[in-house]
Amino acid sequence: MLNTIEAQSAGHGPARPSADALERVIGALTAEFGDRLATSQAVREQHSNTLTWVASQPPDAVVYPRTTAEVASIVKLCAAHRVPIIPFGTGTSFEGHVNAPFGGISVDTSQMKRVIAVHAEDLDCVIEPGVTRKELNDYLRDQGLFFPIDPGADASLGGMVATRASGTNAVRYGTMKDNVLSLTVVMPNGEVVTTARRAKKSSAGYDLTRLFVGSEGTLGIITAITLKLQGIPEAISAGICPFPSVRAACDATILTIQSGLPVARIELLDQAMVAALNIHSKLALPDTPLLLIEFHGTDAGVREQAERFGDIAEELGGGPFTWATKAEDRTKLWQARHDAYWASLSLRPGARPVPTDVCVPISRLADCVEETRRDIEESGFIATIVGHVGDGNFHVQPLVMPDDPAEVAVLDAFLERLVARALAMEGTCTGEHGVGHKKMKYLEAEHGLPALDLMRSLKRSIDPLNIMNPGKIVAV
Amino acid sequence: MLNTIEAQSAGHGPARPSADALERVIGALTAEFGDRLATSQAVREQHSNTLTWVASQPPDAVVYPRTTAEVASIVKLCAAHRVPIIPFGTGTSFEGHVNAPFGGISVDTSQMKRVIAVHAEDLDCVIEPGVTRKELNDYLRDQGLFFPIDPGADASLGGMVATRASGTNAVRYGTMKDNVLSLTVVMPNGEVVTTARRAKKSSAGYDLTRLFVGSEGTLGIITAITLKLQGIPEAISAGICPFPSVRAACDATILTIQSGLPVARIELLDQAMVAALNIHSKLALPDTPLLLIEFHGTDAGVREQAERFGDIAEELGGGPFTWATKAEDRTKLWQARHDAYWASLSLRPGARPVPTDVCVPISRLADCVEETRRDIEESGFIATIVGHVGDGNFHVQPLVMPDDPAEVAVLDAFLERLVARALAMEGTCTGEHGVGHKKMKYLEAEHGLPALDLMRSLKRSIDPLNIMNPGKIVAV
Repeated sequence: MLNTIEAQSAGHGPARPSADALERVIGALTAEFGDRLATSQAVREQHSNTLTWVASQPPDAVVYPRTTAEVASIVKLCAAHRVPIIPFGTGTSFEGHVNAPFGGISVDTSQMKRVIAVHAEDLDCVIEPGVTRKELNDYLRDQGLFFPIDPGADASLGGMVATRASGTNAVRYGTMKDNVLSLTVVMPNGEVVTTARRAKKSSAGYDLTRLFVGSEGTLGIITAITLKLQGIPEAISAGICPFPSVRAACDATILTIQSGLPVARIELLDQAMVAALNIHSKLALPDTPLLLIEFHGTDAGVREQAERFGDIAEELGGGPFTWATKAEDRTKLWQARHDAYWASLSLRPGARPVPTDVCVPISRLADCVEETRRDIEESGFIATIVGHVGDGNFHVQPLVMPDDPAEVAVLDAFLERLVARALAMEGTCTGEHGVGHKKMKYLEAEHGLPALDLMRSLKRSIDPLNIMNPGKIVAV
Repeated sequence: MLNTIEAQSAGHGPARPSADALERVIGALTAEFGDRLATSQAVREQHSNTLTWVASQPPDAVVYPRTTAEVASIVKLCAAHRVPIIPFGTGTSFEGHVNAPFGGISVDTSQMKRVIAVHAEDLDCVIEPGVTRKELNDYLRDQGLFFPIDPGADASLGGMVATRASGTNAVRYGTMKDNVLSLTVVMPNGEVVTTARRAKKSSAGYDLTRLFVGSEGTLGIITAITLKLQGIPEAISAGICPFPSVRAACDATILTIQSGLPVARIELLDQAMVAALNIHSKLALPDTPLLLIEFHGTDAGVREQAERFGDIAEELGGGPFTWATKAEDRTKLWQARHDAYWASLSLRPGARPVPTDVCVPISRLADCVEETRRDIEESGFIATIVGHVGDGNFHVQPLVMPDDPAEVAVLDAFLERLVARALAMEGTCTGEHGVGHKKMKYLEAEHGLPALDLMRSLKRSIDPLNIMNPGKIVAV
């Protein structure tokens, strides 16, 4: 309960709802949703449990709506009784997004899984928020289409919108910000807003779509999503390229981007990460920093891109380049990359992971990664580094023994330095994980007080009762 | 004055400031800005005069700040006296954006023209809002960089941000929404907000950048802009391809996009537009609907793209394809496209142009353009159609005799039908021109009342005194 008390005493968020208010809300929800309303300890704990080490703050109940109208009904009920609402996708976030520091109702979208429409000619689709990225891509494959954003975890698309997710393909296809055409959102007063038409672009007023992308459930609950799609490329080629140093790998990345090579993925694994993957995924990767690269295009185009990248790598002392043109080899390669989280755990059995990310202008990437690696060594703990380096975005996954307060203190100080380092390089405290409640403390340093005040006034204006995921991003 | 009275009686916007308030503000501005404050009729008229036919509503004075601090000083002064502020770039907008229906001070950014920084390694730059897109590209050329967004007019980048501009290159490079990394904005209370860091992506809170992109000066004044840049492609190839019908040209466009061909520009000219260009620009274009196409890439890549497009065109009965690989031929081609506005005028000497745009899902584009062409014929007036068809966006430029009320009535009814047609096809009332005050009446039909109310509450929350470009987008 420490977190709750701390947050409340700092004026972050509302008071917990009264037992009476909760009883009324849970009673009404039980009447409406029957066995789609859960209050068991196990389900509640599961809904505040994510892929990072953060103290669990379970909601008071979990409800599983199936339609926008049901979500609106839940929101109106909670608003009437001032009961917090915490939207829940798959629970794969890292910054405490789904914790319920003030209690309330977790709205689990996992039963909202319809693909409402696929418009192949327009390269878009309309889906419900509980559809995960793998489910969507399985559904689309037969039509020769895919949705490119890939944060690693098989997250729900609703959660990916809410956290402005990106991942390995963002260097070519952008982030969720760039790939959402429109949203249906249940507002904190229960009204339903559609943020835009299905046209590919519009100048018809304020950009409501982008207002909700990255809002982490603090401004409303997303109940339908219109996404841009891509045709599956005619040719895909992926490969691994070792480099003598992290700096050489970063410099090769900068040159690749500057040359206008339309690389689809360019991922850095530092030496610690490579070691972990060799153990966990039973690979025999060269024991140096690596770039994992993928190209999309025509046969000739992909060949040309690969050759050019090979020249750049050689210039920076990298190589030799190993290609995986067969689909199964590529799958193995990217599976290994996606296993990075789990592989890191194998480096220190019993430890808990605290994955975090920052993003800097690409010209500062090598500095930032090198200084961070040095800081890890000097701090004396174990951590891997992987990066979506084409965007200047990298992840550090420290492993910590949660019952060792001295170690936790060292970790906390390290995380502060990591963010300060990124900010000093004109970077951001999070490139893609989001703020949740763990990164709230960095927003003033990142944005300045006037911008933070503007965010707060947006929150107050849209959610005056402060019931939507209170205590996250900008607690008001 | 009719427009002002109408707007006021409909509750749109504030009352005009009192003579006393204006006198104090203009007095203080004269003291601070000297000859950078103008009140002459000619200068005031020029600042409410744009490239469309709309009744002029001049501001009471025009001021030319040079720094963010000067803009903040102007805004604080105007806020203290409740005097409206109308930001002004180059006056190339179409929907009455720079009119001053409630009087006030036009803030002309044309003396804010510094390129503050170019970060070639990061492919970004920081500029002041008065820099125009041609000035920026002239500045960047030596470094092998360019800024791709090209709305035709040599607009100021500040204006392009404010209207969420796009244009011919958007099919490949996106719109202003996709190409702004960060903004410095003077808020309606005079505070200065920086919306984001220079990192290429971030999940650190609400997307303040996109809140201001497309806000048309109603939420604040943009005083610095961080833009993404592109490397100048190694090879550029452009060409003209005739088609037997608008539908065939649209279908070729759909196939091109679906095939994943990374076309950089794909522009439709209808037959009326081709005729106008042949007269105005002394060209000998084939007398049919045309697509103007451009490819960016490597030598081999561009060649391959062109071949594939040629196959698609042939399949749809188009061709032969005429290539302009030499830079001067390409320049001539795109100059002709950019002359479309002026060329249209030559079809009816003495008439005034009323350019407008809508955008629909690309699958509906042929229907929408064909129905619109039929509507033009049946309405009995002269109008050209050009389109950024890769995005489903097209422009209609009717030519009207402003002193013929019957003709104006026919035009007004046509414009209503055009928007209704686009909305019925899941499109938007404007793909890139913006709302200004001329398209405000369509926003409820497009977005629905809850979304419009949300826009209004954003406006009220950020500009409670309603001094920032009042009477535009969502008058409150």
